[in-house]
Amino acid sequence: MLVASIKGGEVGKTAKQPTPTGGPDDVIAMIARLVEEVGGGHRIGIGAPGQVDRHGVVTEAPNLSSWEGPVPLAERVAAAVGGKATVRVDNDVNVAVLGEHRHGAARHVDNALGVWVGTGVGGGLILDGEPRRGPAGMAAEIGHMVVHPGGRRCGCGFDGHLEAYAGRGRLEVEARRRHAAGEATMLVKLAGDERMRSGTFAKALDAGDNMAVDLIDQAVTALGVALASAQNLVDLDLIVVGGGLAEKLGPTFVGRIEQAVRALLWPGSSLRVVPSTLGDDAGVIGAATMVS
Amino acid sequence: MLVASIKGGEVGKTAKQPTPTGGPDDVIAMIARLVEEVGGGHRIGIGAPGQVDRHGVVTEAPNLSSWEGPVPLAERVAAAVGGKATVRVDNDVNVAVLGEHRHGAARHVDNALGVWVGTGVGGGLILDGEPRRGPAGMAAEIGHMVVHPGGRRCGCGFDGHLEAYAGRGRLEVEARRRHAAGEATMLVKLAGDERMRSGTFAKALDAGDNMAVDLIDQAVTALGVALASAQNLVDLDLIVVGGGLAEKLGPTFVGRIEQAVRALLWPGSSLRVVPSTLGDDAGVIGAATMVS
Repeated sequence: MLVASIKGGEVGKTAKQPTPTGGPDDVIAMIARLVEEVGGGHRIGIGAPGQVDRHGVVTEAPNLSSWEGPVPLAERVAAAVGGKATVRVDNDVNVAVLGEHRHGAARHVDNALGVWVGTGVGGGLILDGEPRRGPAGMAAEIGHMVVHPGGRRCGCGFDGHLEAYAGRGRLEVEARRRHAAGEATMLVKLAGDERMRSGTFAKALDAGDNMAVDLIDQAVTALGVALASAQNLVDLDLIVVGGGLAEKLGPTFVGRIEQAVRALLWPGSSLRVVPSTLGDDAGVIGAATMVS
Repeated sequence: MLVASIKGGEVGKTAKQPTPTGGPDDVIAMIARLVEEVGGGHRIGIGAPGQVDRHGVVTEAPNLSSWEGPVPLAERVAAAVGGKATVRVDNDVNVAVLGEHRHGAARHVDNALGVWVGTGVGGGLILDGEPRRGPAGMAAEIGHMVVHPGGRRCGCGFDGHLEAYAGRGRLEVEARRRHAAGEATMLVKLAGDERMRSGTFAKALDAGDNMAVDLIDQAVTALGVALASAQNLVDLDLIVVGGGLAEKLGPTFVGRIEQAVRALLWPGSSLRVVPSTLGDDAGVIGAATMVS
């Protein structure tokens, strides 16, 4: 986890530690320690990797170890730092997109969708200048838009979702499946028994590895379909693309996504697709804006 | 066109005439005449079949004869009724969904999507209690969400849109194509050289006509895909289904759509899919709420 002091949208002192794997108590203690390290603070914003309700309760966090049941993170962090702080918590991608909206790539528009292509595919939606949460706090789950009915299985168990085609995690599953079935690829050689990193995909793609080229082609197509559908449903000014895999694949990848979206929209559309400008800082900057 | 006097969400006097085919002048004169017939009025709301900007200019209306270029309908109707009326114009489906939100099936919720299954497939989106228009006034074009990449051609020229699978117009094109290729169906026999009406599809479906069953199965699947994607993108309380084809196919059709959507959503979802309760009156009631 990364904790930073932020002033006027600029990152000051930072403190970084691997997120503890022992569960909520350890995570909360670590947050309190790192907040202290960067100088303390009475206003604390947090982007959490999971589902967060509007009271700052993390209801699900499948990627955090030993994190079970709803955890009132806002309340507990406030207590851990002495009980006098204002603490706001939202989903990490929502928070990153908020950062891009207030201080980054989407700062001059009122209607933007952020799509974060990393291990999974997350989203954040800004409509008429405000983050869209939805009645169940489930808005902007763009990774679970259906792009190929009956298609590749998503990590969530349903078929044909965007994340199944564009998330690093499912790309790895698919690459290893095809490799096991006899298809050659340097992806498996480069990764070995380790996780297949975003950089591994970038390297194989640069080298013209057939499978990597094919998988990333499919990812671009799937992103184009989902984003064109999103555009026709909510009408946006801008789409911002961020996340680990997008960062490693670089501006070419974002340019290809823009082409794929435009190919599915009426010619008069003024929608633009651009890369994140805050990169790794989008999260901490966005978190700070929730309490500033 | 239907003109009605509305009080408190109830329809009073009405006047109905076929929409003139001679272009904007004739349409505007007819509106003024019918407004007079139902008792006149200083507040006039209009739902127009086309694209409407926020100043009440109809920028495109492909289904109105001799209607070319942008027409400042709000301004011209105000002038035609004596220059003292407040006139608001929006797209006809947006207006119908607004009617359902203020006085119909969606009156107890703040987040609703209306999907109007008729000749085409139109939509109207209510988010946090307000109609979502979008910066280009293009929001809620749910008929043009992509449900089968590279699939059946839509009337708009792109492939795989929802409307290509669920709009009556494209269902007719597909039925006639398959019939011409040798497939038996009573759809063509019932319609003859006339337009294939919604009632024709209902009759063939009731009779168990294979092609009608197959086409409506595909329509339900396509609606399920688009609506599940919409739900995961914006997070809704309710989906309201209306429009001519949906009315003729009845509650069974809406029930099947609900099943198709639910099959693609996480089990905890509380989203409901219900039929329109205002039916043909949704438009005039919604139009009135714009000026009340």
